[in-house]
Amino acid sequence: MDSPNIHILSVRTALPGPPVDNVALAHRLGVGDSWARWAETGVGIRSRHLARDLESGEITHTLADLGEAAAREALAAAGLDAQDVDLLVMGTSMPDMLMPATVNIVADRLGIDGVPSYQVQSGCAGVVQAMEIAVQRLAGGSARTALVLGGDTWVKHFDPSGDVKHLSPAELVSMALAGDGAGCAVLSVEPRPGAAVVRRVRTRLVGGLPPAQTVEWFGAHAGTGAPAVTDDRGVVERQVPVLAAEAWRELLDDVGWKDSDVDAVLPPQHSGRVTERVCELLGVAESRVTSRVEETGNNVNGLLLFQLERALAGLGSGGRVVGLTVEATEWVRGGIAVEVL
Amino acid sequence: MDSPNIHILSVRTALPGPPVDNVALAHRLGVGDSWARWAETGVGIRSRHLARDLESGEITHTLADLGEAAAREALAAAGLDAQDVDLLVMGTSMPDMLMPATVNIVADRLGIDGVPSYQVQSGCAGVVQAMEIAVQRLAGGSARTALVLGGDTWVKHFDPSGDVKHLSPAELVSMALAGDGAGCAVLSVEPRPGAAVVRRVRTRLVGGLPPAQTVEWFGAHAGTGAPAVTDDRGVVERQVPVLAAEAWRELLDDVGWKDSDVDAVLPPQHSGRVTERVCELLGVAESRVTSRVEETGNNVNGLLLFQLERALAGLGSGGRVVGLTVEATEWVRGGIAVEVL
Repeated sequence: MDSPNIHILSVRTALPGPPVDNVALAHRLGVGDSWARWAETGVGIRSRHLARDLESGEITHTLADLGEAAAREALAAAGLDAQDVDLLVMGTSMPDMLMPATVNIVADRLGIDGVPSYQVQSGCAGVVQAMEIAVQRLAGGSARTALVLGGDTWVKHFDPSGDVKHLSPAELVSMALAGDGAGCAVLSVEPRPGAAVVRRVRTRLVGGLPPAQTVEWFGAHAGTGAPAVTDDRGVVERQVPVLAAEAWRELLDDVGWKDSDVDAVLPPQHSGRVTERVCELLGVAESRVTSRVEETGNNVNGLLLFQLERALAGLGSGGRVVGLTVEATEWVRGGIAVEVL
Repeated sequence: MDSPNIHILSVRTALPGPPVDNVALAHRLGVGDSWARWAETGVGIRSRHLARDLESGEITHTLADLGEAAAREALAAAGLDAQDVDLLVMGTSMPDMLMPATVNIVADRLGIDGVPSYQVQSGCAGVVQAMEIAVQRLAGGSARTALVLGGDTWVKHFDPSGDVKHLSPAELVSMALAGDGAGCAVLSVEPRPGAAVVRRVRTRLVGGLPPAQTVEWFGAHAGTGAPAVTDDRGVVERQVPVLAAEAWRELLDDVGWKDSDVDAVLPPQHSGRVTERVCELLGVAESRVTSRVEETGNNVNGLLLFQLERALAGLGSGGRVVGLTVEATEWVRGGIAVEVL
């Protein structure tokens, strides 16, 4: 029995509020314009969207809010409704709570019931793992239409409207990078004119490397000395492009495409600077690269869906997309290869 | 193409340190013997194993430590080594960190590399979801041998050796229930004399019910008013048996077994008291029930593997096991049906 094609019927995304530029963020953090310039040129981020109001400090959006908004738009774009969905898989590194799973809150709000629903806990690679799990299940015949969600909000770790004197230099770097957002793709075994087909999705552990990024969580009473977030920029900037190039080669080999067959490349988006280096190493011209991180900030498990949404909007029949991911904690490399029908 | 049988080659578990009985815990918490009696009769817990030394307050085991120990024993019992593993899936509600995923730390310590590895974020149902994902992938032919891990440690939320004056009454209930532990099952498409076969594994969202249990996480600087853990015992004790009975019926229907065909029933283990009510509602005699929660405490995603390990040890060829799970947060019901070859 041949496995059916798995189609991407739609991809939609949700951002909280308007973009916050570097000067506005620097002002709120009480750091100077030099920090704003460094965020742009040294990190490669021009703006980010935040799930917290910078003036009032109020949290304006949860991850469930963003996931729900993206899912509603994705379902509408696919011409489907909640009753058509028989599987949900979400990737996130910072769920709203440990229990309940954020994906189940999204499902409940959408009125989806009686179906399997999984939430993958992971850094950047989580959204690709989510797609991998969904594709496996759709291909196996036990589901026909899946929502694949990815997203993250940083609100528990960073509050730029609050007391920021406690922020370490590493946290100030992360503050420049961090953005909030979520996306949703509708996958289906049903063909549809103009839909994209998932030709390949894969993730692989990369053993033997110490984590270059970590995100901690705490109990309510844990007066802890552990840093909430660590980020070794040097290692990330050096190692991510190498692993991205390996993932690129593996995906192309799997599907039998040449480099030049790929119309849109979605590089890992740890920062604008990492994106540049990945593209250099892959030898891919800027015109073929779909990048979002400079405007959205790093919303971790959302980013690939933001890139995919834009890339698919610009491609016609026969268009080919390769999206890459590298997780820089216990390391993972992988990606997706997609072709428009 | 028929899907291959998925075999459970071994199940092993790991507990941190010796059992802590109710009197010892009550003494440490500075509550009286009446609390100890209530923990036994009102909650149905006689002891628990804790990943923290009650005298020194030191954390003695991480979830990765327990998962690694269980995985090493499970691999040894299956006569396999790390190089035979080509998939890992773990279910947990309280991973050691948000990034890296605990499952990837376990993989790295075992020397497993270059394979897919997923961590499902979920309450009690997470370990069944992990098994469901692994079985799907094994059945689809893209992996041959998987480690399925489940476990939880409560150390970030409860420190019975520390200042416990801040504990709410609800947290004192949870403290009576909570235990730390992890398990690992080795699943394979390879047959093996005496192995068990997974006849069915399923989970389903149950919409429309508000969460009866929640577990929060916090950033390092979040002076929060939100409770870390909530647990509505009344709803849990009333609703879990009803959903367990639905899951029981669905599983038996799926595999075509009669009630009396099942040699070992593994009920959801929210507490000894919940277990009793589930068994009453299912009409299953105590002699057919495998229960561990009274001695281990509720180690959430570990428990089903503790039950399964014991049940399989007592069964010969043709023995049939049904394990049930009900997640009482955004609700999920499900379970596994297993038969010894």
